Amino acid sequence: MTFRTRLRYRFGDIDDAGIAYYPKLLHYFHCAFEDWWSDALGRPYPQILHDDKLGFPAVKLEAEFFSPVRYGDEPWVHLGVLRLGGSSVEFGFWMTRGDDPKPLCRARVTTATVDMAKMEKCALPAAWRERFAVFSLREEDFPRGR
Amino acid sequence: MTFRTRLRYRFGDIDDAGIAYYPKLLHYFHCAFEDWWSDALGRPYPQILHDDKLGFPAVKLEAEFFSPVRYGDEPWVHLGVLRLGGSSVEFGFWMTRGDDPKPLCRARVTTATVDMAKMEKCALPAAWRERFAVFSLREEDFPRGR
Amino acid sequence: MTFRTRLRYRFGDIDDAGIAYYPKLLHYFHCAFEDWWSDALGRPYPQILHDDKLGFPAVKLEAEFFSPVRYGDEPWVHLGVLRLGGSSVEFGFWMTRGDDPKPLCRARVTTATVDMAKMEKCALPAAWRERFAVFSLREEDFPRGR
Amino acid sequence: MTFRTRLRYRFGDIDDAGIAYYPKLLHYFHCAFEDWWSDALGRPYPQILHDDKLGFPAVKLEAEFFSPVRYGDEPWVHLGVLRLGGSSVEFGFWMTRGDDPKPLCRARVTTATVDMAKMEKCALPAAWRERFAVFSLREEDFPRGR
Repeated sequence: MTFRTRLRYRFGDIDDAGIAYYPKLLHYFHCAFEDWWSDALGRPYPQILHDDKLGFPAVKLEAEFFSPVRYGDEPWVHLGVLRLGGSSVEFGFWMTRGDDPKPLCRARVTTATVDMAKMEKCALPAAWRERFAVFSLREEDFPRGR
Repeated sequence: MTFRTRLRYRFGDIDDAGIAYYPKLLHYFHCAFEDWWSDALGRPYPQILHDDKLGFPAVKLEAEFFSPVRYGDEPWVHLGVLRLGGSSVEFGFWMTRGDDPKPLCRARVTTATVDMAKMEKCALPAAWRERFAVFSLREEDFPRGR
Repeated sequence: MTFRTRLRYRFGDIDDAGIAYYPKLLHYFHCAFEDWWSDALGRPYPQILHDDKLGFPAVKLEAEFFSPVRYGDEPWVHLGVLRLGGSSVEFGFWMTRGDDPKPLCRARVTTATVDMAKMEKCALPAAWRERFAVFSLREEDFPRGR
Repeated sequence: MTFRTRLRYRFGDIDDAGIAYYPKLLHYFHCAFEDWWSDALGRPYPQILHDDKLGFPAVKLEAEFFSPVRYGDEPWVHLGVLRLGGSSVEFGFWMTRGDDPKPLCRARVTTATVDMAKMEKCALPAAWRERFAVFSLREEDFPRGR
């Protein structure tokens, strides 16, 4: 099972070439990460951060941009879990348009798990590990461009 | 005396109509406010905020957009102090291009002075009032559009 | 009748004082304007812009910030039409949290109507004037802060 | 020879964990790319785009985030050319603070060369290939984290 959320690509998130500015595409992937916490895991990320004192900063990112995203697009943004380490998690994100499963772009984002009280790396709590595992994505199912 | 800083309008700060997205123009005015602390007052705003525990949040804003700003523009962003209250300060900001004094846009931004330790309004410290007064801008010198 | 849309205030839209960066609040107002076209008027703004060659750039803006917006807030963003001129329209925007009608911030934004083919000001088309009028907001109903 | 530019990390480019939001770090890398055109190659990117009808969209990106960037940092942002293909170019970007050569983050960004009139991939013009080659960066000189 993977998670998906539909987002509106916005008027001000365009670059001077008239298409999506790629740092903004990565912002939309982060929005999907936030929606996953709220809508799939049932605990909003601000509570994780402020009440549970857990953070998931990105330490590594690999992104591929296959086709331009434009203003007016309302892409599906998908999230799956590619790898669960002791502390690190590798997420796969991708965008699709309408019913077309071909990705417009995709990214793998590796996060560390951080104890926000001590500001140091910690183990991924077992309860979350279990919940994350439900969203496991096999490498061969992480959609590739052309 | 007013302060000015030259900023590069960036590739990703454009909207789908091909011109500056106006919330970004307000961001550039805030950048000028930050440069004013660093380059004119000699104490960077992060130090004011974190070491001196003073903040200057905007409480009111009035902006006028006279001419589009485009990618490739390297506007001068100007700052003057229109009014010094007990706690509040009214700043005037405007943008010009090259040697042309005609403003592309302008804004008056009223800030409160906040004690960041207590998170409550406080008086503008006398030492800063004096330094701010140097940048006084008379209403009639705040450049008007056509 | 006024329009409202619920938006998630995002992790990356925060400033170094830990609250909403006000240019981002204005971005959220613009998002509500876009949602109004899509969800209330039934014609997405990208089509208005690209197919109908009509644009509604902001020429004037007045904003007041009453209470901080924080990460985790999922504010209602409201839109009403304060004034319909020949070419200009004055919109009222405000944000509320949960069931509390007290606004966190509000803005009046005056737009021009622009023929995007000729890039010059034009009259607001009668059909849109009629549709906009449905969302009329009387000055006394535009929620005031404290 | 590599290029570097000094940028101010801004008040509004912070996330709710109080550090740089990583999509914004990638924005700063793009700013360095723009500064390289203006300050090192002597032809601003807007002219390349609009007058020469050449674009360099990112097709691939790999980033590593080693240490947090905070408000108040005025990082050096460095650019080198890791690989020159027929149409593609691989850039290396990294950020450092003060005199410390240890990178805070780095990214390799592969761009395509696009004929903006036809909106299709084209060869990197020979004159630019020559100019780009001056900024060649050997893999072993692309600074690694810890």
